[in-house]
Amino acid sequence: MKSLHFTAQSSVDGMLARDFTVGGVPGVLWSPVSAADRAPLVLMGHGGGNHKKHPAMSGRAERLVDACGFHVAVLDAPGHGDRPRTEHDEREIAALFAARAAGEPEGPIVVRYNAHLAEQAVPEHHALLDALQQLPEIGTAGPVGYWGLNMGTAIGVPFVAAEPRITAAVFGQHWPHALAEHAKRITIPIEFDLQWDDEHLARHDGLALFDAFASPEKSLHVNAGKHKELPRFEADSAVRFFARHLGTVVEVRA
Amino acid sequence: MKSLHFTAQSSVDGMLARDFTVGGVPGVLWSPVSAADRAPLVLMGHGGGNHKKHPAMSGRAERLVDACGFHVAVLDAPGHGDRPRTEHDEREIAALFAARAAGEPEGPIVVRYNAHLAEQAVPEHHALLDALQQLPEIGTAGPVGYWGLNMGTAIGVPFVAAEPRITAAVFGQHWPHALAEHAKRITIPIEFDLQWDDEHLARHDGLALFDAFASPEKSLHVNAGKHKELPRFEADSAVRFFARHLGTVVEVRA
Repeated sequence: MKSLHFTAQSSVDGMLARDFTVGGVPGVLWSPVSAADRAPLVLMGHGGGNHKKHPAMSGRAERLVDACGFHVAVLDAPGHGDRPRTEHDEREIAALFAARAAGEPEGPIVVRYNAHLAEQAVPEHHALLDALQQLPEIGTAGPVGYWGLNMGTAIGVPFVAAEPRITAAVFGQHWPHALAEHAKRITIPIEFDLQWDDEHLARHDGLALFDAFASPEKSLHVNAGKHKELPRFEADSAVRFFARHLGTVVEVRA
Repeated sequence: MKSLHFTAQSSVDGMLARDFTVGGVPGVLWSPVSAADRAPLVLMGHGGGNHKKHPAMSGRAERLVDACGFHVAVLDAPGHGDRPRTEHDEREIAALFAARAAGEPEGPIVVRYNAHLAEQAVPEHHALLDALQQLPEIGTAGPVGYWGLNMGTAIGVPFVAAEPRITAAVFGQHWPHALAEHAKRITIPIEFDLQWDDEHLARHDGLALFDAFASPEKSLHVNAGKHKELPRFEADSAVRFFARHLGTVVEVRA
């Protein structure tokens, strides 16, 4: 079993941030500074072109650590953040930019490239969870959530479908083509985000992925706006979702 | 202008309930017992076959009064609660029960019957708001919300489309046929509830009504489950929505 190797540590506003590697993959673990007892864990997956410490990640981590006292961990996805890009990465990114410049649909490229990254990232996430559960402040008994939109959904859906330790998940903003078959095997509570005016993802594709989950409890949140205009209150909603399902009372200002 | 005539008063757990009539229509006004200053107001509309004090109404009122310090008012819809049924009411209700017994779609009957009730109920709601704003604890300056699902949406959408004093609304679970044209004139923030496995309302119909609202901020919440299985956490979500838009900080337990 791979172990975490901590490489750096800092703390800001009551939140401890520890950089680590696990099997050579860089990640970050955010925790309450004052955490004495064991606390639930949320794994997060970042979006395409971003990285483990992108503000979308650190902002969500801050909410989960502050409001819930949870631990939060994120890996750099393959080809992202502090990890090298392969020739395959470069080709796919060039294809994506070319499609964008030509006004052609990005979906087919994103779907195939993210599916390729997920093949590598899914086992890395199983190994991450193995390693995190060796830490005394996390352990093996507590509940674990997963939160990832966009590419974080492309990696997260096959990961969660194969990972019985995850008991609640927030997904969204991805296509059904490579993911629906995995989603059909997922039965845990799900919150799923879409943008009603997404310029990349057609409504029927987004709704089809939500439809595919076998979860008896699943909630779809759709907001007016384009792909990148997901409202901030959806992050608060996700935090409340995890608080409800991972077992901690939370108070979030409206 | 019609005035409120208070007819009875009780208080339970810090919430004052005052029965009233306005232009002969019976209603109830729930308020914080300790309300000294003016506070925002939420008008609610009850579902078909229910009445102003149905637990779905009093439960939501309790959340709004307790968590936000708001006033909450509900009228009995025409033919509902303490109001007499007309021959037309009796015929439509018989038609609805017959369709249900025969396993035929209820939608066409509900759509036409609710549209008929809305013709009468919409002016009653304008008069209600006029009368409530004469009360010193409400006044004309504060923000006003509207919250009604099912028949409460059938009455609420045409009401809100014609009522500039309403600044935020929660709707859901109704057909677009009689409502979409009204919804196209609504631009205030909207939260809209649907059930993914609604046995009466087809998905495309529910989504079409959500789509029709012109609001730049609109959120759709869809949950797995049948028509009557709307999760309780959607009531908490609606309360947070009103707290956000009517201007009061709320803390709701997850």
